[in-house]
Amino acid sequence: MHTPSHTRPLILITNDDGYTATGIRDLARAVSTFADVVVVAPDGPRSGAACAITPTVPVYYVGPYDDLSLDGETIYSCSGTPVDCIKLAMEEIVPRQPNLILSGINHGDNASVSCHYSGTMGAVLEGCLKGVPSIGFSLWLQHGDWYEKEPIGEDVMTAIGALCQKVIEQGLPEEVCLNVNLPSISKFRGWKVCRQARGRWSGEWASASNPRVDGRHFWLTGSFIDLEPNASDTDFAALRSGYCSIVPITIDMTAYNAIEATNQLLL
Amino acid sequence: MHTPSHTRPLILITNDDGYTATGIRDLARAVSTFADVVVVAPDGPRSGAACAITPTVPVYYVGPYDDLSLDGETIYSCSGTPVDCIKLAMEEIVPRQPNLILSGINHGDNASVSCHYSGTMGAVLEGCLKGVPSIGFSLWLQHGDWYEKEPIGEDVMTAIGALCQKVIEQGLPEEVCLNVNLPSISKFRGWKVCRQARGRWSGEWASASNPRVDGRHFWLTGSFIDLEPNASDTDFAALRSGYCSIVPITIDMTAYNAIEATNQLLL
Repeated sequence: MHTPSHTRPLILITNDDGYTATGIRDLARAVSTFADVVVVAPDGPRSGAACAITPTVPVYYVGPYDDLSLDGETIYSCSGTPVDCIKLAMEEIVPRQPNLILSGINHGDNASVSCHYSGTMGAVLEGCLKGVPSIGFSLWLQHGDWYEKEPIGEDVMTAIGALCQKVIEQGLPEEVCLNVNLPSISKFRGWKVCRQARGRWSGEWASASNPRVDGRHFWLTGSFIDLEPNASDTDFAALRSGYCSIVPITIDMTAYNAIEATNQLLL
Repeated sequence: MHTPSHTRPLILITNDDGYTATGIRDLARAVSTFADVVVVAPDGPRSGAACAITPTVPVYYVGPYDDLSLDGETIYSCSGTPVDCIKLAMEEIVPRQPNLILSGINHGDNASVSCHYSGTMGAVLEGCLKGVPSIGFSLWLQHGDWYEKEPIGEDVMTAIGALCQKVIEQGLPEEVCLNVNLPSISKFRGWKVCRQARGRWSGEWASASNPRVDGRHFWLTGSFIDLEPNASDTDFAALRSGYCSIVPITIDMTAYNAIEATNQLLL
């Protein structure tokens, strides 16, 4: 008997590095053996886009790009942010409700507080806001370059595919999505569920030269400071031990344990 | 004896509507009686900027604009996002560590899940990430226009000033900032500490005509659906009752009550 293709789960994939990025191809390859895959990703880099949306100009999409499809996935580019990609895909592009939304693999980690700035994680939060199980994948670049050095390993690919299948089968808790960071693109040591490390960025501006005006131009830069270097249950602790960190993230930003203190403040 | 001005608290103010917006002037006026005020705000509208940062081009600031200062505040514009404004102000502009960071008053509410997309709240989260007590103010526009209709009321101004003074004196819990929404610009009925309402945006794209290409251009739009219309402890419940909602927001996005379920998923 012929099995119609829509009995396979549908996975929607985006990223913040653009629709031609290697990381998005790897994600598509990791899941295309068991799922129909639609890619709707920005038409260029959108690093640091967070949950930004585009209210001031119309957003458009282009595709499908059949010549770019290596594993049967359907690929579109979108002029908007990663969140726009999810919003537009869900309403105008995908043929049915996705069973899973993926974002990444980002070229750079989104552990600790960096998830606030991440366009990769913005798309994941948007998927969660739409009620679809959603996972973001990012790579910790502590050893320097990535794809310039090594391709994704088969065991990493297999582990990502298995995680995605489990999430499709079992779902995720309501209002919760996953922030996954990988310590290596080539080797898989195991998963570790953890919490977001407390940290902050420091020394964030470098003077930029400019021939036309005075010296008040600045490049955003900076170094990350892990404020809990000795903790064992954080995402950075997992990464330092060679494990892939999985932080369950909530879209409910309420600080429930601060409600009483806030009431006291008003007395 | 002469009291040096730096014995007054320093308040840094930004927004996502731009440095000339009426709402930012109102905030400056509400606190300038007891604080030194520095405004560093985007050079144009940045609605929907969320926690976005600008990694691809240099960011610059212009000012101070002495002619715009109505209440003694020092005003700068910045080419970046609201988060860039806070980052640049903290490292390059303010004369000392601010005692408080304010953002708004936004022309439109940031209650429920809208706080994820809000540039106003992005700046507040950034202030919190920098360890500075931070508050975002937004106006619920259920009755249509705002400043076209009425100026800010004296009792609203007084209430905002009093809240800011309390936060400066007593601080906020670690990793917590405040998301304040006002149901009226002219009348103050009271504060209500609450949680973020569960909700979602629906019907988010309207076709945009375009003379050059086919019809796949879309304006971001949509209507908000409160998924808990009968709840009494949410921000929208407070607003509907005429109260100003205060939601304590955390920068730790970990879903602690989902860690066990996530571990189970991996078995």
